[in-house]
Amino acid sequence: MAATPVWSVDPRTGKQRGQVAVEAAPAEVDGAVRAAHAARGALADAATRVAFLRAAADLLDASAAQVVETADAETALGTGRLTGELARTTGQLRAFADAVEEGSYLDIRIDRADPARTPPRPELRRYKVPLGVVAVYAASNFPLAFSVPGGDTASALAAGCPVVVKAHPDHPATSELCASLLRRAAVATGLPPEVVAVVHGFGAGLELVRHPLVSAAGFTGSIRGGRALFDAAAARPVPIPFHGELGSLNPVVVTAAAAAERAEEIGTGLAGAVTLGVGQFCVKPGLVLVPEGADGDRVTGALTKALEETGPGVLLDHRMREAFIEGVRERAALPAVTSPVAAGPGGEHTVGAGYLAVPARTLVEGAGTSGHELLLEECFGPVTVVVRYADQGEAAAVLGLLCGNLSATLHLSAAETAGGGGPAAELIAQFTALAGRIVVNGWPTGVAVAPAQHHGGPYPAATSHSTSVGGTAIERWLRPVAYQSVPDALLPPELREANPLGLPRRVTS
Amino acid sequence: MAATPVWSVDPRTGKQRGQVAVEAAPAEVDGAVRAAHAARGALADAATRVAFLRAAADLLDASAAQVVETADAETALGTGRLTGELARTTGQLRAFADAVEEGSYLDIRIDRADPARTPPRPELRRYKVPLGVVAVYAASNFPLAFSVPGGDTASALAAGCPVVVKAHPDHPATSELCASLLRRAAVATGLPPEVVAVVHGFGAGLELVRHPLVSAAGFTGSIRGGRALFDAAAARPVPIPFHGELGSLNPVVVTAAAAAERAEEIGTGLAGAVTLGVGQFCVKPGLVLVPEGADGDRVTGALTKALEETGPGVLLDHRMREAFIEGVRERAALPAVTSPVAAGPGGEHTVGAGYLAVPARTLVEGAGTSGHELLLEECFGPVTVVVRYADQGEAAAVLGLLCGNLSATLHLSAAETAGGGGPAAELIAQFTALAGRIVVNGWPTGVAVAPAQHHGGPYPAATSHSTSVGGTAIERWLRPVAYQSVPDALLPPELREANPLGLPRRVTS
Repeated sequence: MAATPVWSVDPRTGKQRGQVAVEAAPAEVDGAVRAAHAARGALADAATRVAFLRAAADLLDASAAQVVETADAETALGTGRLTGELARTTGQLRAFADAVEEGSYLDIRIDRADPARTPPRPELRRYKVPLGVVAVYAASNFPLAFSVPGGDTASALAAGCPVVVKAHPDHPATSELCASLLRRAAVATGLPPEVVAVVHGFGAGLELVRHPLVSAAGFTGSIRGGRALFDAAAARPVPIPFHGELGSLNPVVVTAAAAAERAEEIGTGLAGAVTLGVGQFCVKPGLVLVPEGADGDRVTGALTKALEETGPGVLLDHRMREAFIEGVRERAALPAVTSPVAAGPGGEHTVGAGYLAVPARTLVEGAGTSGHELLLEECFGPVTVVVRYADQGEAAAVLGLLCGNLSATLHLSAAETAGGGGPAAELIAQFTALAGRIVVNGWPTGVAVAPAQHHGGPYPAATSHSTSVGGTAIERWLRPVAYQSVPDALLPPELREANPLGLPRRVTS
Repeated sequence: MAATPVWSVDPRTGKQRGQVAVEAAPAEVDGAVRAAHAARGALADAATRVAFLRAAADLLDASAAQVVETADAETALGTGRLTGELARTTGQLRAFADAVEEGSYLDIRIDRADPARTPPRPELRRYKVPLGVVAVYAASNFPLAFSVPGGDTASALAAGCPVVVKAHPDHPATSELCASLLRRAAVATGLPPEVVAVVHGFGAGLELVRHPLVSAAGFTGSIRGGRALFDAAAARPVPIPFHGELGSLNPVVVTAAAAAERAEEIGTGLAGAVTLGVGQFCVKPGLVLVPEGADGDRVTGALTKALEETGPGVLLDHRMREAFIEGVRERAALPAVTSPVAAGPGGEHTVGAGYLAVPARTLVEGAGTSGHELLLEECFGPVTVVVRYADQGEAAAVLGLLCGNLSATLHLSAAETAGGGGPAAELIAQFTALAGRIVVNGWPTGVAVAPAQHHGGPYPAATSHSTSVGGTAIERWLRPVAYQSVPDALLPPELREANPLGLPRRVTS
């Protein structure tokens, strides 16, 4: 059987730019995983990993022009955005290098022996070890920050796990280019290049998650694709953790007082958050609760104006464009739904941004029976649903219909911000049950790479309780091991009494 | 349909002691879960949880005579062992109360805003919140420490999660008694009694893991039962984490030098670890690598003597007794397997302890084809398999055949203990890939309740990378939430700038 070609496609024209690779056959996936597994020992030394991550960041930065140009040619995301995304990506690689150097990710705990206890307590020393080969499934919408050199790869390598990335078909050339830079960085720091591999093709992705030597997976993408891989990971003879970020509506609530105070600012800001990256962000606000009445009308008026002034955009690929147009059409056709700014086809290869509007009571009264639950599903692209609510009870009832989310956002007035308690406190409490990150008086887009970040949330936002962004993302690729009464000379250096690596530890005497 | 009765049975006679309860119908499971879910808010206050856990420990201690007598009557584990197990159980409840008071389980991280960054970093404050109702599946072999008042319950309640326990059919009366004490402790500390519930019956257990309001599960038991529940948890529309401890062989390696140095001590110690609790420990050594030759013969000689001197014991129930007798029979019938001390039926209700022996090369050469892989499966009860090895390579090859384990144990000579490097270091490295806890010159039985403990390991030892014993067990029932630019007055007290609760935090400026 001839190999299936993998093409790089220009979404601005729909034309093939060139063949980049071929889809990996099962034997090729097996080869990549076995080579990565064989290379895992080389990643055991923390100082080498630190050097590798920094070298990778430096090489990516040094190749910025080529990386950005390649990514723009096959994603149409624009060089400005992609330059920023590359900076985020290399910053992320360096942040994980810093985290490895600092060492608290090892979560070292030492209990000294206590023979006086009943029963006597033996000496216990615990730290974390890498799981083994990690499968990473690249996202369509971030060809760098959530793809080959992205957060899953960076955190897995930082943990000491080799990585096999299943490239996204929307940016195979960028994937190959970035992989070559990562592998060059590996070699430059004395590591075998096999610590990073890339495979292409849907079938290869499924092979990967089923491979006996793959010990964990990270995924960013759709609910359908993510759930299929999650199910395959759970059905293995030896199940493995599958950390998937699947889908999120990212609800926003604008209080009546906030609308009264700064309707135009909120409406304009919302338009920006909905159209950023042509609406292709995991944390795009997809459902916005705006009060009924004149102040709410000013919010939607500003939203209307800003969206009408937004030019058409190019989506990542033509299937996405078709799915977006169809998704908007289906939603707009529901009873009581209006389209104040009609999102949909722009030119031959573009789409225009817009929004839909619906009364809260339509959602609440029809819950589960009227077809309006479609409005509570993510629609990937530059569109949002504005839900007009009469009172706090209605807003809470709509929130009560939602599944898990990556983020939930609240716009408050100055008085509500200062006050504490009241409806704002109730909404924060409801948000905490609903989402992984809660934002006040801002927008959820722009997920900061920072130690306290959490980019995850109740299902389907994520399939596990971990984060794919921020300092604690490294925890996904490690497991604890405890050493009981193991003589000092036989302990890993991280756990030796003299603490030769100077690592942070929690000691119980 | 008449309700199915739940009987308490005396395993010493096989006779029913009395009907304790009925199996829960689906509507009853639903009622227990809904009531627990409705009660979850009452567990939000940390000080109340601390008081509750301590009151529960005090009540259990005050009722020690009755608890131990009831547990002994339906498990035959003996009052000495059960008195110790109760102390362990109440110590565990108090240890989690202490952990809640100390607060580092919340893993609080605060990143101050940094407007000078590109892009500007917003303020982020992250801590962990309870998941919701936890389903706990009680173990047969620890009617207290891994059952109703055990580690899963204690850690879930400490995290702020209500608990519905599926009782084990081997000790329904103990389960009901302990539940009544826990519920009394709840009421005494101002909590609704519904924060702890108990249900009986296999069907009830399956209903529980599928219930939409159950958000996580903890399990200790067999591979078959645990995997069925794991699969059900993963197949839900909203999958939930399933922390199961399923099965473990707990390999032991006795080096040639250790055998030369203290063969009798090792053989006798091994007999004790194999027969403790009539061999019904998750960490019973089930496979022991002993060198060929005279020193190894002295190890097995001491083992033989000690086992022959061990009286017959009563297993937890009659199905277990039959499974044990049949499991030993099947293994003993394999080619090249001998039974120096034949484990098997004792009196009408008892079994005698014993061991099987097999050359390492039989296992290695026959791997996967000869039927000898049965020797690499846990056999619950007072039996172990002694594998005689010619050299380190053979020992390593046998270890290479094993699945994941809770523990791995190494017996070294004084010189090997002092030396570092060499074969001991290689074995420790191989153990680290294979097990969650590594023990040197001791026995894996007796899992200390301590901050650095890890009781888990690669599948099938555990279905997740968490621990069911020790300080970090609480992490299983929590998920992180990040608050971005949330005004101080609207933050949970745990995250407020003034730190009113005095909690440990990691702050990035």
